[in-house]
Amino acid sequence: MISPEIPDIVISRLPVYARALSLLQAQGRDVMSSQELGQDLGVTPAQIRKDLSYFGRFGKQGRGYNVQQLLDRLQTILGLDREWRLALIGVGRLGQAILGYGGFSPQGFNVVRAFDSDPDQIGQRADGLLVEDVADLEASLRETPVDIGIVAVPALAAQHMIDLLVASGVHSILNYAPIVGRVPAGVHLKQIDPVLELQSMTYYLKRRE
Amino acid sequence: MISPEIPDIVISRLPVYARALSLLQAQGRDVMSSQELGQDLGVTPAQIRKDLSYFGRFGKQGRGYNVQQLLDRLQTILGLDREWRLALIGVGRLGQAILGYGGFSPQGFNVVRAFDSDPDQIGQRADGLLVEDVADLEASLRETPVDIGIVAVPALAAQHMIDLLVASGVHSILNYAPIVGRVPAGVHLKQIDPVLELQSMTYYLKRRE
Repeated sequence: MISPEIPDIVISRLPVYARALSLLQAQGRDVMSSQELGQDLGVTPAQIRKDLSYFGRFGKQGRGYNVQQLLDRLQTILGLDREWRLALIGVGRLGQAILGYGGFSPQGFNVVRAFDSDPDQIGQRADGLLVEDVADLEASLRETPVDIGIVAVPALAAQHMIDLLVASGVHSILNYAPIVGRVPAGVHLKQIDPVLELQSMTYYLKRRE
Repeated sequence: MISPEIPDIVISRLPVYARALSLLQAQGRDVMSSQELGQDLGVTPAQIRKDLSYFGRFGKQGRGYNVQQLLDRLQTILGLDREWRLALIGVGRLGQAILGYGGFSPQGFNVVRAFDSDPDQIGQRADGLLVEDVADLEASLRETPVDIGIVAVPALAAQHMIDLLVASGVHSILNYAPIVGRVPAGVHLKQIDPVLELQSMTYYLKRRE
């Protein structure tokens, strides 16, 4: 039923809608309009209605959306109603910070494998996980697949690790290294990009002066 | 000349446009259309033209944008043509990874101050920076201000650090902790949110099954 040509940018807005609806649900709200939702999120009501229309009919003209129904539907569409297995590549300072990050597991994202190339790290435990040799990554992930790979290595090594994950059958990769990674069609790469966040705040700083 | 009611979401798209234009410029392109730019970025050409129209007239109907001129203008609007001073709060594993991140300084973002509450860290050097006592943060930043604060402390301490930065006169804050931080009007808070990135990739993983 879902058409295959939904733009990436639409998909990337759905988790934002789902999160806002979760908050409303926790506050005991039953119904909300696309105006209200849009106002909180900086998205026009028309954009919200168009984004949701890819997935069927939600809400009734002039009556708003049923918060619980829309949230359930978004969670099903996005696969937020299940657990996902992640492999971490790189257990240096950043990788260890990622293992200690409190935000993943409450949302169903479990880091279950860790890899590094440092002989001092391989065979050790990081946050309870055995650190495996990155040289064994492909064989290891072919045998016990994961859903998502996290790249937390220095910039110079990052593209090679992305390539290795792709060769190992991983189709979703989250990259923390400051490079523009390349992946073949059918693989999804998302970038943690603090510079883009900073670059929009400097607009406001500049106007203050 | 710049109207004050430009939506945040428009401002947050400008750095994305600037980055795409930088890449084109590096490839020797002189002119490009909003169609081409939009195709690369997943934004409609109409949205790009509307976003840019807040800042004046760019390009000529049917002739596309002059890459260099538009890039220069965006860099000036966003303040990307100068250096910015950052203070890091928290020099644990995450904070140290941030100090070692190669992406900030090439873009003019320099971490010049570091604070922590751990007596074992205070007075030590992290990536060349003296780690100051977070108890002195307000007095220290009042004396030598920074432009932006980075919060890299555990979730439970994060809102308190955000409040401290605000009380110290900092108007732009980048938060890495997994909380929804609150700031008063006039202060801009951006969130590093890896879960939102993961949640849009699971859509594609689910469709594969």
